[in-house]
Amino acid sequence: MKAMILDAPGGLDRLRLVDRPDPGAPGPGMIRVRLHATSLNYHDYGVVAGRMPTQDGRIPMADGAGIVEAVGEGVQDFVAGDAVVSCFFPDWQEGPPRIGDFSRVPGDGIDGYACELVVAPATAFTRAPTGYSHAEAATITTAGLTAWRSLVVDGGLKPGDRVLVLGTGGVSIWALQIARMMGAQVVVTSSSDEKPERARSLGAAHTINYRTHPEWGKLVHDWAGEGVDHVIEVGGPGTLAQSIDAVRIGGHIGLIGVLTGFAGDVPTATLMSKQARLQGLIVGSRRMQTEFVRALDDAAFRPVVDRTFALDELADAFRYQESGDHFGKIAVTF
Amino acid sequence: MKAMILDAPGGLDRLRLVDRPDPGAPGPGMIRVRLHATSLNYHDYGVVAGRMPTQDGRIPMADGAGIVEAVGEGVQDFVAGDAVVSCFFPDWQEGPPRIGDFSRVPGDGIDGYACELVVAPATAFTRAPTGYSHAEAATITTAGLTAWRSLVVDGGLKPGDRVLVLGTGGVSIWALQIARMMGAQVVVTSSSDEKPERARSLGAAHTINYRTHPEWGKLVHDWAGEGVDHVIEVGGPGTLAQSIDAVRIGGHIGLIGVLTGFAGDVPTATLMSKQARLQGLIVGSRRMQTEFVRALDDAAFRPVVDRTFALDELADAFRYQESGDHFGKIAVTF
Amino acid sequence: MKAMILDAPGGLDRLRLVDRPDPGAPGPGMIRVRLHATSLNYHDYGVVAGRMPTQDGRIPMADGAGIVEAVGEGVQDFVAGDAVVSCFFPDWQEGPPRIGDFSRVPGDGIDGYACELVVAPATAFTRAPTGYSHAEAATITTAGLTAWRSLVVDGGLKPGDRVLVLGTGGVSIWALQIARMMGAQVVVTSSSDEKPERARSLGAAHTINYRTHPEWGKLVHDWAGEGVDHVIEVGGPGTLAQSIDAVRIGGHIGLIGVLTGFAGDVPTATLMSKQARLQGLIVGSRRMQTEFVRALDDAAFRPVVDRTFALDELADAFRYQESGDHFGKIAVTF
Amino acid sequence: MKAMILDAPGGLDRLRLVDRPDPGAPGPGMIRVRLHATSLNYHDYGVVAGRMPTQDGRIPMADGAGIVEAVGEGVQDFVAGDAVVSCFFPDWQEGPPRIGDFSRVPGDGIDGYACELVVAPATAFTRAPTGYSHAEAATITTAGLTAWRSLVVDGGLKPGDRVLVLGTGGVSIWALQIARMMGAQVVVTSSSDEKPERARSLGAAHTINYRTHPEWGKLVHDWAGEGVDHVIEVGGPGTLAQSIDAVRIGGHIGLIGVLTGFAGDVPTATLMSKQARLQGLIVGSRRMQTEFVRALDDAAFRPVVDRTFALDELADAFRYQESGDHFGKIAVTF
Repeated sequence: MKAMILDAPGGLDRLRLVDRPDPGAPGPGMIRVRLHATSLNYHDYGVVAGRMPTQDGRIPMADGAGIVEAVGEGVQDFVAGDAVVSCFFPDWQEGPPRIGDFSRVPGDGIDGYACELVVAPATAFTRAPTGYSHAEAATITTAGLTAWRSLVVDGGLKPGDRVLVLGTGGVSIWALQIARMMGAQVVVTSSSDEKPERARSLGAAHTINYRTHPEWGKLVHDWAGEGVDHVIEVGGPGTLAQSIDAVRIGGHIGLIGVLTGFAGDVPTATLMSKQARLQGLIVGSRRMQTEFVRALDDAAFRPVVDRTFALDELADAFRYQESGDHFGKIAVTF
Repeated sequence: MKAMILDAPGGLDRLRLVDRPDPGAPGPGMIRVRLHATSLNYHDYGVVAGRMPTQDGRIPMADGAGIVEAVGEGVQDFVAGDAVVSCFFPDWQEGPPRIGDFSRVPGDGIDGYACELVVAPATAFTRAPTGYSHAEAATITTAGLTAWRSLVVDGGLKPGDRVLVLGTGGVSIWALQIARMMGAQVVVTSSSDEKPERARSLGAAHTINYRTHPEWGKLVHDWAGEGVDHVIEVGGPGTLAQSIDAVRIGGHIGLIGVLTGFAGDVPTATLMSKQARLQGLIVGSRRMQTEFVRALDDAAFRPVVDRTFALDELADAFRYQESGDHFGKIAVTF
Repeated sequence: MKAMILDAPGGLDRLRLVDRPDPGAPGPGMIRVRLHATSLNYHDYGVVAGRMPTQDGRIPMADGAGIVEAVGEGVQDFVAGDAVVSCFFPDWQEGPPRIGDFSRVPGDGIDGYACELVVAPATAFTRAPTGYSHAEAATITTAGLTAWRSLVVDGGLKPGDRVLVLGTGGVSIWALQIARMMGAQVVVTSSSDEKPERARSLGAAHTINYRTHPEWGKLVHDWAGEGVDHVIEVGGPGTLAQSIDAVRIGGHIGLIGVLTGFAGDVPTATLMSKQARLQGLIVGSRRMQTEFVRALDDAAFRPVVDRTFALDELADAFRYQESGDHFGKIAVTF
Repeated sequence: MKAMILDAPGGLDRLRLVDRPDPGAPGPGMIRVRLHATSLNYHDYGVVAGRMPTQDGRIPMADGAGIVEAVGEGVQDFVAGDAVVSCFFPDWQEGPPRIGDFSRVPGDGIDGYACELVVAPATAFTRAPTGYSHAEAATITTAGLTAWRSLVVDGGLKPGDRVLVLGTGGVSIWALQIARMMGAQVVVTSSSDEKPERARSLGAAHTINYRTHPEWGKLVHDWAGEGVDHVIEVGGPGTLAQSIDAVRIGGHIGLIGVLTGFAGDVPTATLMSKQARLQGLIVGSRRMQTEFVRALDDAAFRPVVDRTFALDELADAFRYQESGDHFGKIAVTF
């Protein structure tokens, strides 16, 4: 089977398409999956760009979607022919988080899904939403579940809530769509001219250009009346001060991203006097994914796949992600 | 009646003992309280020291304990003779927080309790715990309720939980005692030689000298096995990085204090990968105080009142607080 | 002003239209509201039909919607001209329930809203959803808020959840609409031929005729795969056994109604082994209503007002309710 | 090894002590445990007495405590020599309940722990609390965890809460002790003359003779002021009406027992108007047990083991349970 591998110490030009042995029949509790799509996330980029040390020859990519070809003894969740999607944390089945690193995350600590075939524990996958393409399904693993968990599981989102999403990347657009599905109102920041228009077409009630309005936190706060209930904080230290200005008293900030760095100046006294909650998270459990998929079965929307690349164009796909020109998710299909 | 007032723009030497008119009989919904004690908090210090702008002639102090002398029409919660203690937010009766400033906090936005008599809404007080001295009761309003809310209301503390308290000030010692009352294990940081011994006599399982061990976060983490469940973070930006190191995956940090500043460098990526919750808070609602007082009625411990001053020694009391020599609370009785 | 009053000891033929004095200008904290609509609930029916003892001359009806004509001193939530809707529990502002009777419920323990004018505390009303007719707004007070609280506040409803609603009365149809707004799947029971069709047009995924299928609990369970997540239980003891059969392990039954009696045989061992939660409730707090109204501002649906009567036809309206022919809410406008 | 087995169709005189083959070395993920104690529960009684159909030759008893003798490949939670205690639901590791029957419960659907040796998945045990005897540890599996889950996990017990426990059986006395450990106040019902005294010596604040006071629900309500916050309802339909009278508005009733039957007359309208929660439960997950054991490590109390029997006296032990003379738990050691 074909697989994309990464030569250590990483870098976009260190990706190579190779032939790997067929993984064979699934043992007890395992499934054999023919993969057809993956999608790109910043975590994958960190690995592929060599910013995190990874084993030589690693198959990258945490997201994987495809069709079950065979099931091992004792597998009850799937039958051959099922459309499935991978889990970011194959060992976190349910309950509160117990994992704080990437040592068992596909595409980082273990091989990922930039390949045609995989044999893995059945518990490392869930079924895909009814009617989804493989590219659409692949966007669930990391970006989709992150947005779902932050808004629905951590945040207890309800209709009428005000939600701030930063920018128009994969997690943010998923958050916009989930919030709209539940009757919440969404404001989106962007520095682009045309992306706000696309966000509005997906249901955003308001957009703000953060470049022309560097004090956008206050604008968001006032748009919401008394501040937003939830912030999908993908920026990190560079945007957190504005997010804290934007949130309401007692509000919720999902701390998801490191786009602007791993540490930085934070106005902790304002967070305190706002009595707000800054909730760190990394994706979610398989149980959360199962419930998320169930929610998507009947949803009226589809995730936004901005552009699709072939497997041997994976480096190009990441370069496109680097450009920041995308809106929503970038996928690779094979 | 005698009252201590603060001349603008503040400063310990700007406190003056004056005579003020008797506040008279309570109107409908009001109670008349003869105050006998208050206790010192950093918020009060901020006002008295002139770090926050306050109205000229303000009576300082958020904490007030005393005896109801008369009740106005329609008051059902109290009768004359009841021992009572004031609420930090007289307008926040129950439900989630809706207040993000001090504009209606006694001793800051409105007159406080460094005086002999007050007429106030009955809803601005709760009863005091059975058998408490006025000085002990006064410590509930700010420090006690802050510790209770962070651990019990926000944190859902349960027996066996591991709790980190920073230092041995009023909130920290209250947190130590509440955690012990519920069967949790507590580690206390201190730079002193003798305070750790006192903390142990109150039930602390472990103490760490943060001066000789600047990387105390890791020590706390390892003491707890997999990190502590809760941190009572009174330090702010100067200690938060170590607190994040100390907390377990999915753990809870109550962001309470500004001792080391209003903003500073925070390792947000670590908070994120720990999937931890940084929960800002300022004291709590009257409902929380009512439940807290009920819990204290039958508790086997009393709050630690380190030293007591007279009303006209209020400035001296704050100087003692400035010294950092205290352990637990400093009170003023009259 | 005109008012409908009830002569003790009650009965539909004991309703009388009378002239009452204008309530005058609002005092401090009060508002004067010109009412234009009320809607019918089983609680109102219990009062009007004389099943509950009520004071002679009582103005019935808990639901009231209209326009603020004047505000008293200190009122900040409203200005003249605002469209408002009444609260079922005028004294329950927020926090957990503290009220277990109807002694202060409008139309029962105090005068209600079957009249043209009222002066009441501002805290006894919230604003109405944007664009709602008065009849539509009136349905929020009791039926709408009951459904919202059970599903959203008590139940934490999320997209993909399965919801069972019993019948097609006011609470049930509100629950159907709220569940659909949030992406949940709904099954409706009915004994009618045509009502299921109307329920489907509002988004019900499935309907079951409980008369032809007396063991409908199992059918509902199997439709949902592993049982429904939530039941809106308006029937009481006569339907509870089937509802327990229908709910999933760990599921939630909102115990709302007494249509089949005040007590009866319940299979408690099944409830136990299902590890299910039977949650009693009566409507909700003003805070819940405020959040509910905010959710409705932007919602794509309107409540179902089956039929509208005039004020002097109030008895006829209740007779129509008695017939059980209605679908959704019955309103009275004036 | 010796084992007690049950001949179908059950009955106390159908228990037989037999020799069974040594279970051998543990395979991957398994542990070999030398058992030293079990304890009796009503569920075990139901099986042994033949009230539930069980396979011929079944080894009864859900509770098992002993020492790990060997661990299989990949086992990380234990090493040889560890003191361990069994889990009621070996397949429910964490998260919300998903199991509604006894098909995989030791001593019912699968063999239990009335035997000297077992090889089982490591995930079917947790470690025992530090310093516990095997008999004490065995009481955790069913009775202890049931009380812990109901009060702490489901109920969010906090200091000052009022708790009603019905009678002085195993779950009730565990609940009394857990509530006391957390600073809650407990009232105990009993028809005995001497058991109330023992309950008081364990910290009960109040006791009521339910035989001389058949309307004990109101007495409990008034003792608590406004009703109790939590009820440990082990009686079922025969006591539930009084429990509902006893609970406060918005309170919590843990529905645990079937002592008075599987179904019966319940005043659902009162449950509704009390806005109370009737929460069915069966024991809990392994995660809950792990946290419970951690809480017990440092607790100042030990579970009450009323009397201890030898393995071949198991039928006598159940006869003693039948007599109702016990207070707390009955254990069998070997």
